[in-house]
Amino acid sequence: MATRSAAPEADCAREQSGHPLDRALASALQSTIAGAGVGVELWNGVRTAPPGTERGALVIRDRRALLGLLLDPDLQFGECYSDGRLDVRGEFGDVIDALSLNARRDRLSLRERWALVTERAEGLRAARRNIHRHYDIGNAFYRLWLDPELVYTCAYYSSAAATLEQAQTAKLDLVCRKVRLQRGDSVIDAGCGWGALARHMAKRYGARVRAFNISREQIEFARAAAAREGISDRVEFVEDDYRNITGHCDVFVSVGMLEHVGLRNYASLSRVIKRTLDGRTGRGLLHFIGRERRRPVNAWTRRRIFPGGYVPTLAQVDARVLEPAGFATLDVENLRLHYARTLSDWLERYERAVPEVRRMFDERFVRMWRLYLAGSHGAFLSGWLQLFQIVFAPPDLAVRWTRDDLYCGSPTAGPERA
Amino acid sequence: MATRSAAPEADCAREQSGHPLDRALASALQSTIAGAGVGVELWNGVRTAPPGTERGALVIRDRRALLGLLLDPDLQFGECYSDGRLDVRGEFGDVIDALSLNARRDRLSLRERWALVTERAEGLRAARRNIHRHYDIGNAFYRLWLDPELVYTCAYYSSAAATLEQAQTAKLDLVCRKVRLQRGDSVIDAGCGWGALARHMAKRYGARVRAFNISREQIEFARAAAAREGISDRVEFVEDDYRNITGHCDVFVSVGMLEHVGLRNYASLSRVIKRTLDGRTGRGLLHFIGRERRRPVNAWTRRRIFPGGYVPTLAQVDARVLEPAGFATLDVENLRLHYARTLSDWLERYERAVPEVRRMFDERFVRMWRLYLAGSHGAFLSGWLQLFQIVFAPPDLAVRWTRDDLYCGSPTAGPERA
Repeated sequence: MATRSAAPEADCAREQSGHPLDRALASALQSTIAGAGVGVELWNGVRTAPPGTERGALVIRDRRALLGLLLDPDLQFGECYSDGRLDVRGEFGDVIDALSLNARRDRLSLRERWALVTERAEGLRAARRNIHRHYDIGNAFYRLWLDPELVYTCAYYSSAAATLEQAQTAKLDLVCRKVRLQRGDSVIDAGCGWGALARHMAKRYGARVRAFNISREQIEFARAAAAREGISDRVEFVEDDYRNITGHCDVFVSVGMLEHVGLRNYASLSRVIKRTLDGRTGRGLLHFIGRERRRPVNAWTRRRIFPGGYVPTLAQVDARVLEPAGFATLDVENLRLHYARTLSDWLERYERAVPEVRRMFDERFVRMWRLYLAGSHGAFLSGWLQLFQIVFAPPDLAVRWTRDDLYCGSPTAGPERA
Repeated sequence: MATRSAAPEADCAREQSGHPLDRALASALQSTIAGAGVGVELWNGVRTAPPGTERGALVIRDRRALLGLLLDPDLQFGECYSDGRLDVRGEFGDVIDALSLNARRDRLSLRERWALVTERAEGLRAARRNIHRHYDIGNAFYRLWLDPELVYTCAYYSSAAATLEQAQTAKLDLVCRKVRLQRGDSVIDAGCGWGALARHMAKRYGARVRAFNISREQIEFARAAAAREGISDRVEFVEDDYRNITGHCDVFVSVGMLEHVGLRNYASLSRVIKRTLDGRTGRGLLHFIGRERRRPVNAWTRRRIFPGGYVPTLAQVDARVLEPAGFATLDVENLRLHYARTLSDWLERYERAVPEVRRMFDERFVRMWRLYLAGSHGAFLSGWLQLFQIVFAPPDLAVRWTRDDLYCGSPTAGPERA
């Protein structure tokens, strides 16, 4: 666009205040974000705002923050914003989205390459600690901005007008229909969150579900909800790691857990699926955040939000989880934009709940979670992140002839073998 | 099932004629195929037919065939059948399907492991020779049993009552709709066969198509058809290898070519897609025979039918073709059963055309192609082979919000970027 500077590095700091070094650093930072339409403002009045940067500005409160943003933006953007050493002028979500789109690049940094090489497997204890840190900060907090069923994964908006509640219910149904869930089917739900999917399967489809999770708060919530609904005989919530799942099932589902499993543990997950899912008529579904290329989780997200997390490519899941388990992929759907929309709905509710969040935690927590939600929205919108749903089954099982029944309300028949 | 022998190796040859060695060999062969419900009959009257093998029998004409079937069944079944040293008693397709289902196993043989390790890249000249051998044996032959447009890939049966012709047209439309083909879009079709898809895109969607193929007979057929239809200004057929494709396109499709490309050439194909397909608004589709696990092409098929062929897993295509090209997978559909049905239709027409085929070629050719078609049917039915359609696009391109428009006739809007 003509209004954007072709050579932003040539733009000088507008106001000639501040140390020449600060002006030079501001100018260097400006050159990396001009494409996002965002300027730079320093604590001492230095401003760079080349033409086309009217969207907003990064307001930097001290020199350490400025250096951090230049040297290690992946980590320091989040650290500085959480600490209040970085602010955003302009509409917060809009600026974050623009920065995310602008930052998209194909090449990996040296830091990212190193992170990929040193990716390691989390043991049971570390996994429990990591999950505790994110999910056990209080159901009351999540109730402030999730839907009433506390579904903390990508929703499915069958139309643009759908509410978050409708879209979460539609997602639960989409999962059940994709695996052709039948009355009486036994289900294993690995990483069940607050149990909405497991309870939905029991309530609406008459399935018998065993749901696993290592977050104590989530499991307790799920059990209480099942008891209230009178379905405790059909859905069992087990506080245990996916690696300890035993038994046998007709349907294996895992929605939003794979991101926490970590690449080096895919072989374990594969063995769990192989030993539990029926090798003749079983159907499975994995729903997870993915990427189109191998890349480590953003450094700040991994440090503050999802320790131990890894976001895989489709090929990694297919080759390391499904292939060794002997299952064939039947269907993959990329719901990236549905997660962007889900996050937009969450962020809107979160902002309304900020005074409450501030009372429950502190300002640093408020800012950290705002950035996490807005940054995730930007990542899905700009294609840094994708959202895959994979349906799998034994290589000779015919789960459906066409997809018509998923979308046009055709009658649903059960799965058939050759 | 109770009628099937639990220990077929314990069954003796029913008639005690023949050399004891032949009886022992027949018994050994019987033990490997009893699960298929198929018996063994030798040239000298030896028969093994344990309970439950009423489906039919392998009729073996000499000792060399018997040894071959025991020592190297993957190769020798086809060789012996083609030569007339092996016959099938019972309904041919039914027996082949049953043998295929019975033979399914997860472990690779030593021979298969070796074949995977020694998989090599075919150069341009070898590729041309391989393609010539299969596709340039005369359009007249293919006209005998394909649909009139000569579509030689998996059809799409939107209902069980659909004819082959309807299903092939439905497949062409499904491909066009999956990539949201728009009037005026420029398309590259890599490996265009007899050009049905390319012409369909030009005729029905107003696209401008350049279609590539190294089979001279196919290209000549395609050009003549386009001239007859008056669309030569909109569809260009180029007799060249996919590696030499140049230019730029909005849509990249390749239907049924990847099987011939060979694993070691995926990097070349990836580079072709990266340099030709629009990195901002491009959409692509790969349609190919695949597997749920790494395994070499059946030895006989590779020797006699598809030299240089390789059937990949979804992960191999995703990791080696799409990931390096920087595209994200949006949709994968497994159409395995549609290929079984397509092959069933082809085989039925082929059998009716056998007298004609025999006049054009010889008995050996007749038998070779019968086995290839029936064996492929068995392979898709029993899950040895899968059929994948992958839709891909730049990581931030929104090709569609939901799949409703593909299945419920909703209005189709064009692709949008974030």
